[in-house]
Amino acid sequence: MNNFEFYNPTQIVFGKGQIEKLKDLIPTDKKILMIFGGGSIKNNGVYDQVKKSLMDHTLFEFGGIESNPKYETAIKAIELARAEKIDYLLAVGGGSVIDATKFISAAINFDGDAWDIPSKNATFENPLPFGTVLTLPATGSEMNCFSVMSKGSDKLGFGNPSLFPKFSILDPQVTYTLSEKQLGNGLVDAFVHTTEQYLTKDVNTPLQDRIAEGILQTLVEEADKVIHIKEDYESRANFMWSATMALNGLIGSGVVHDWATHMIGHELTALHGIDHGRSLAVVLPSLLRELKEQKKVKLLQFAQRVWGIEGGTPDERIEKAIVCMEDFFNKVGVPTKLKVYKITEDDLPTIVSALRSHIPANLGEAQNIDQDMVLRILKRAL
Amino acid sequence: MNNFEFYNPTQIVFGKGQIEKLKDLIPTDKKILMIFGGGSIKNNGVYDQVKKSLMDHTLFEFGGIESNPKYETAIKAIELARAEKIDYLLAVGGGSVIDATKFISAAINFDGDAWDIPSKNATFENPLPFGTVLTLPATGSEMNCFSVMSKGSDKLGFGNPSLFPKFSILDPQVTYTLSEKQLGNGLVDAFVHTTEQYLTKDVNTPLQDRIAEGILQTLVEEADKVIHIKEDYESRANFMWSATMALNGLIGSGVVHDWATHMIGHELTALHGIDHGRSLAVVLPSLLRELKEQKKVKLLQFAQRVWGIEGGTPDERIEKAIVCMEDFFNKVGVPTKLKVYKITEDDLPTIVSALRSHIPANLGEAQNIDQDMVLRILKRAL
Repeated sequence: MNNFEFYNPTQIVFGKGQIEKLKDLIPTDKKILMIFGGGSIKNNGVYDQVKKSLMDHTLFEFGGIESNPKYETAIKAIELARAEKIDYLLAVGGGSVIDATKFISAAINFDGDAWDIPSKNATFENPLPFGTVLTLPATGSEMNCFSVMSKGSDKLGFGNPSLFPKFSILDPQVTYTLSEKQLGNGLVDAFVHTTEQYLTKDVNTPLQDRIAEGILQTLVEEADKVIHIKEDYESRANFMWSATMALNGLIGSGVVHDWATHMIGHELTALHGIDHGRSLAVVLPSLLRELKEQKKVKLLQFAQRVWGIEGGTPDERIEKAIVCMEDFFNKVGVPTKLKVYKITEDDLPTIVSALRSHIPANLGEAQNIDQDMVLRILKRAL
Repeated sequence: MNNFEFYNPTQIVFGKGQIEKLKDLIPTDKKILMIFGGGSIKNNGVYDQVKKSLMDHTLFEFGGIESNPKYETAIKAIELARAEKIDYLLAVGGGSVIDATKFISAAINFDGDAWDIPSKNATFENPLPFGTVLTLPATGSEMNCFSVMSKGSDKLGFGNPSLFPKFSILDPQVTYTLSEKQLGNGLVDAFVHTTEQYLTKDVNTPLQDRIAEGILQTLVEEADKVIHIKEDYESRANFMWSATMALNGLIGSGVVHDWATHMIGHELTALHGIDHGRSLAVVLPSLLRELKEQKKVKLLQFAQRVWGIEGGTPDERIEKAIVCMEDFFNKVGVPTKLKVYKITEDDLPTIVSALRSHIPANLGEAQNIDQDMVLRILKRAL
C-alpha cells in the first residue's frame, strides 16, 4: 500500500425528506446565494422544498449554470454575491452546479483574473462556505474538493482542501424526474471514476480493491432498475451512495491513480460537445485494450470479481471483461464508439494536439501515454 | 436503505515514517500534553519519534493509562492539564489511550462530577482538540468520536461529534513490536466491529454490505501473515486500515446496528478481566446461533461471500459459517469458550444482573435480547 492522507469533512445527510433539514444546516444569520442550473429544480419540486426550509433565512438566487459550467457564467454569480455581501453559498443541482459553486467560493475574494485558479493553480484565500443539495448522482462533487470549469475550449480541473462542501443533502427521491440519458451518463461516470482508481498497478490494497469492486458491482446490479423503474427508491438510493463513494477520496487512498480516460474525455467534451459520462464510455474500453499488459493483474481481478469470468486464457478473460463493460454502457444507453458522434479519423489530430496544449506531460498511471498512444486509443474507439 | 448522516472530519496520515509529520499537524503555539500507556512506546521507538518531531513544541507528558482506561487515572491527567494550561492533547497508543484522551478532552472544562459524562450523558463544552499516533490496530477509536471508560465495575461508553481526533497518524511499522496476543485481540475486535453493523436485518444496502465483507475478507486473508511474520509491512498495513475502516461510521451508514455482543462482552471484561477482543470472541458465536432465524438473510450471505460456503441446507451453511469464524478466532489465538477463563454456570446470573443494572432495556438490533436470552447465550458459550 502506498502512503496516503485521507481527509473528508463533508457532512452527508442522506435519505427521504432530508431537504427540510437545510434550515438547521445553515446558520440563520447567513446571507445565502442559492445557485442552480437550467430550472429543472422548479419542475421537480426541489426548488420549493429548498425555499420552504429556508423561509427564515435571507436567500438570493442565481440560476443558469450550464453543463460543463462556464467561467463567464460563474463570474456573473460572483458579481451578484459581492454586491449583496453574500456569506454562504448553496448549490442545488448536479456536478456542474456544485463545481461552479466551488469556483465561485474560491474566486469571490480573489484579486486578479479568477481563471488563474484553474489555469495557473493560483492560491486563493477566504473561500465562502457552501453546502449542496444534490439532484443528479454522477460526479461525486458533493463529497470532494475538486471542480472542473470551462472557458472557451479549455476545460480545466482544480481542487483545494478548503473546497469541501460543509454538508451535502442526498435525497434519492429527487432523481425520479431525471431522464434515462442523465441516469445512464451518471451510472457511467461513477463507474469510470472507480476504474480510474482501481484498474491500475497493483500495490497490495485488498480492502480498497474490494470497496471499488463493491461500487462497480452495485452500479451494474442496480442499473436496470435505475433506468427502467421511475420511482424505485432502493435502487436510486444505492446508485446515489455508490456515485458519492466513487469519488470521495476513500477508494483512492493508498492506490495508484490513472485519470487518463478523464483527460482524453475532457477534450471530446470541449471540442465536440459530448456529455462527460459519454466521453468516458468511448475512451475507457480502448484505453484498457491499449494498456492491457500494464494493467493485467487488475484487469484479471476485474474480470473475475466484477463480471464472474472464469474460463479462458488471461487475454481472453480480459477481452471478455472489456466487452461486458461495453455491453453494460450500451445497456444503460451510453454509446462506446466515436462514430455515433460523427467523429472520424480526420478529427483525431486536433483532439490530440488540444490535449497536448492543456497537458504537456504524458498521461496515465505510468506517465507513458504520449501523443502517439492517445491517437492509437482514439483510433480504436472510432 | 435507512436514512443516515455521515460525518467524519479526522485527517488520516497513513504509512511509513509518518510520525515525523507531527510537527506540522499541531500548531507550534500549542501547549501539548502527550498521553500514553504503560511505557511500551519507550521500548519500540515511538516515544523518541514523537519527541523528536515535537522538539520545537511545548510538550508535557502523562503516562500510565491502563487497558480499559480508568476514570481515576484520567482525572489525574486532567489535573495536570489544568495546572499546566494545556491546550492540545496527543494520544500515543492504542484504543485505551485514545479513549482516555477523549474523556480528558471532554471533561477538562466540565464543572461537576466528570463521570456524569459517560453515566448520565451530561453535556460538556469546549473540549480540547487532540490528535493521535496509533500503536495498536483494533478499536477504531483513532477515527471515530466514541470512548469507553471504566470506574469500578462500571464500563460505559459515550460519544460526541466534537470528539473526533483532529488527525491520526497510522504507521504500520509501529505494530512490529506487538505481541501475538495483542495482534489476535485486535483482529477479533475489528472483525466483531464489522459484524455488529453487518450481521443484522437486511435493509437493502449492497454497497455497505460489500465494504463490510471486504473488511472481513481482508482480516481473514491477512491474519496468518499478521500473526506469524514480525515485519511484514503490507499485511500490517492492510490490517491497520481495515481496523480503522471497521468503526469510522462508514459501514454503519444506512444499516441496522446490533452491538449486543459488545454490551455483553463489556460485563465479562468488567467482572472477570477478560480482554475486550477476547470477550467478543466468546459471545458472538453463541449470539449468532441464538439469533440465527432473525439474522438468516445476512448469515447466509456471510457464509457464501466471506467463507465461500455453497452446499447444504440454510441451517447447515449458517452453522458452517459460525464454525469457520470460531476456527478463525482460535487460529489467531483467541478462545471462544468461557471455560478457558474458568467461568462456570454459577457465575452467569451475576453477569446477567450486572448487565441489566447498566442497561435496563433489551439489547440488540430488534431489542429482543432480554435477561433470559443473555443467559442462554452465555450458557451456549460455557
